[in-house]
Amino acid sequence: MIKQGYAYEEALEAVSGRVDDALRKSPGLVRQFLDTMTRTKGKMMRARVLLACALDEEGWINADAVGFGAGIELLHLATLVHDDVIDDAAVRRGLPTIQRQYGRRTAVICGDYMLSLALKQLKGLQGKDEYRELDFPDYVERICLGELRQQCSNGNLSLSVYRYLSIINGKTAALFEAACHAGIITLYDDRNTVRGYRKLGHYLGMIFQLNDDCIDFEEDEATAKKPVQSDFEQGVVTLPAILTFEALPALREQAALGRLDRAELNRAVNDSGGILRTRKYAEKYYDKAGKLMDVMDIPADKRKILKTLFEKACRGLGK
Amino acid sequence: MIKQGYAYEEALEAVSGRVDDALRKSPGLVRQFLDTMTRTKGKMMRARVLLACALDEEGWINADAVGFGAGIELLHLATLVHDDVIDDAAVRRGLPTIQRQYGRRTAVICGDYMLSLALKQLKGLQGKDEYRELDFPDYVERICLGELRQQCSNGNLSLSVYRYLSIINGKTAALFEAACHAGIITLYDDRNTVRGYRKLGHYLGMIFQLNDDCIDFEEDEATAKKPVQSDFEQGVVTLPAILTFEALPALREQAALGRLDRAELNRAVNDSGGILRTRKYAEKYYDKAGKLMDVMDIPADKRKILKTLFEKACRGLGK
Repeated sequence: MIKQGYAYEEALEAVSGRVDDALRKSPGLVRQFLDTMTRTKGKMMRARVLLACALDEEGWINADAVGFGAGIELLHLATLVHDDVIDDAAVRRGLPTIQRQYGRRTAVICGDYMLSLALKQLKGLQGKDEYRELDFPDYVERICLGELRQQCSNGNLSLSVYRYLSIINGKTAALFEAACHAGIITLYDDRNTVRGYRKLGHYLGMIFQLNDDCIDFEEDEATAKKPVQSDFEQGVVTLPAILTFEALPALREQAALGRLDRAELNRAVNDSGGILRTRKYAEKYYDKAGKLMDVMDIPADKRKILKTLFEKACRGLGK
Repeated sequence: MIKQGYAYEEALEAVSGRVDDALRKSPGLVRQFLDTMTRTKGKMMRARVLLACALDEEGWINADAVGFGAGIELLHLATLVHDDVIDDAAVRRGLPTIQRQYGRRTAVICGDYMLSLALKQLKGLQGKDEYRELDFPDYVERICLGELRQQCSNGNLSLSVYRYLSIINGKTAALFEAACHAGIITLYDDRNTVRGYRKLGHYLGMIFQLNDDCIDFEEDEATAKKPVQSDFEQGVVTLPAILTFEALPALREQAALGRLDRAELNRAVNDSGGILRTRKYAEKYYDKAGKLMDVMDIPADKRKILKTLFEKACRGLGK
């Protein structure tokens, strides 16, 4: 019997290998800078989501999905490198960032270079007729607009919930949506199906970001497994803080005067229900995704993997 | 009679319009940042070159070349925005840079955003079978590698001529080569022809950069029509300086000790023949291009336009 493609874990391995290859087979000059990026890959959530969406009824994933997965992960890594420049970040997943090690000039170019690696993975695929509807540049544009909106809202203590959600829709959810889109079109081009999966990607991205926002208020890096307590210091006002300031306008005044220290904010965010209410927002997306999946025609094994991914995204929700 | 495409000037207008549209029809948030970019377009040398290559025997240019032209100009503008971040530049073509006006964080994202606009222009075209050989991501990669090499050679007063030429081959000439490549494949896909035009692009880009390097040693901004005297201050050691240091090792020692001021360097670069010898390098590329064009089968009007572009690129050469 001819092998029909990759099994899920095998496809994930293949994506990981392709990303590593792209980074490691770069010219020596750039390889030294990108070296740590192979260890910054993390769990490759976006590729996992993409491959889950690409699973066919027999549990196989075709080779194009692996190419899309590598492209999306490289694109994600490229955005991280530029994010670190923007946030002046020293550490990412326990490793010094490119910008800290080699300076922001090098980091800006390395991010651009990694984008070219992503484009290379996607190039052969984007040309295919059956993938014409998948508009990668449009997703890249949405990501940039989200980042710009965040940048323009920096330090805005009166940011509305609505505007915040629109920021993270671009900044984070767009790439999850792109992942689901790329995954499903390797199987179907029927508009309704594609729309359904894109929505799942959107919900997943929103949950992922809101959960991340809560983690930033955890006191302990060991628990969070990432640098915490950094958003507010960077002027990034996330949902837990927005909801807390809405509930406690006096606290917002205090923050505006620069008289709110992080310990006080943490206490307030936890006590006033800022964290709890943020988790409620995430739960809403989780419920919406659940309802949508109920009416979608999804093979049992695939459904199970997708459910697991949703649970991982909101591991803080106790789901 | 049915119109067969655009005439040269008309195509140039169309590219200019598309670039302006892309910038001006961006969401309000980003439009404020990109506003000055429409005035930073300059003479659109890369689009001019591209369209010249795309001229058919009857003097027409097809619509795809206009799309490629807009894509290449937007890509070029995107690299300028990131260049300004890297060089910490305050002024570009007489206007304050994005990074000076709005900060480097915003400039990093704006550059990324403009790259997405470029990708949008190219998207529909790259998918076409007849353009399969045109590897845009590969050109982007070469540009980034050139920039990285330049960054890594920053302040290196012993940079070799060979290494310098390889830097500008990526940094500048790759995009000119891409322009010629994109232009000619709208007409022919025969390998030899394409290779010939790509070489012309390479030569043109090298001449363009070497001429720019000489201009940076001109004393007067009014003559240069751009900020001058900035390369050396940024640690960018260009060919005129490299050749001068080769001729005057004592001056290199002096520079290494930080005891060389700009006025002295300017004098030395002019007196020791650094400028003259740089122009000789440019002339070599000019001659190579001339010889290549002599054996290429190019319609008379097209040849004339290409010649004019070469002359513009080396306006300092007295050609």
